[in-house]
Amino acid sequence: MNSNWLDEIKWDDKGLVPVIAQDETSGRVLMFAYANRDAVALTAEKGSAHYWTRSRQKLWHKGEESGHFQHVSAIQLDCDGDVLIYQIRQEGGIACHTGRESCFFRTLVDGEWQIVDPVLKDPHAIYGGHSH
Amino acid sequence: MNSNWLDEIKWDDKGLVPVIAQDETSGRVLMFAYANRDAVALTAEKGSAHYWTRSRQKLWHKGEESGHFQHVSAIQLDCDGDVLIYQIRQEGGIACHTGRESCFFRTLVDGEWQIVDPVLKDPHAIYGGHSH
Repeated sequence: MNSNWLDEIKWDDKGLVPVIAQDETSGRVLMFAYANRDAVALTAEKGSAHYWTRSRQKLWHKGEESGHFQHVSAIQLDCDGDVLIYQIRQEGGIACHTGRESCFFRTLVDGEWQIVDPVLKDPHAIYGGHSH
Repeated sequence: MNSNWLDEIKWDDKGLVPVIAQDETSGRVLMFAYANRDAVALTAEKGSAHYWTRSRQKLWHKGEESGHFQHVSAIQLDCDGDVLIYQIRQEGGIACHTGRESCFFRTLVDGEWQIVDPVLKDPHAIYGGHSH
């Protein structure tokens, strides 16, 4: 398969690119993570979001533990070629490992971070009790 | 002024945090950049987006050259405390230095990056002919 498009992405010095995962319908930003070349290639091939987890240093098929897969309908690239957006449909409606819809559940109000989103599902119920 | 909220942001090893600039009305992601502590503090204080430009290594008040200021109505923080969203109203309707609404004007179609957004204003007209 033609992979020139992968060469047009400017990978950082660790071979990664930042990825914004955005709900294709609501436009809400659900998550931010990094992907390496394999992860982006697999995302395009399978239509399911793949990332590179920096904490665990491995390829990460989002949903492999939680079941909260992200169905990717489009991949967008920015002007500098060094940031991607995955347009997604979030399975289970939960992108965040805290059990919330979005990882961006805190808003600055009067000089304090306020939590503005509910936990939709207990993380222990999502991840079966092992740490994440 | 209370700045504990700034301490809750996890700055990277260069003292920066990634920032997603999102249109507060349409939800479109317009830009991705980095900010240091001063930039985020100024953004909260002035309600106008400030960043740190890594290429020029200085504080960057978005719009200072182009007039395309970003009016910030909300700042959001992610679960790990290391990524921000600025919810903005984009003055002039142009966030990208290429003269487009959004920096994310390329979409992957059949293995190629296709430009899906028009240039709204010639960059030379925006920046007065000097390089950017």
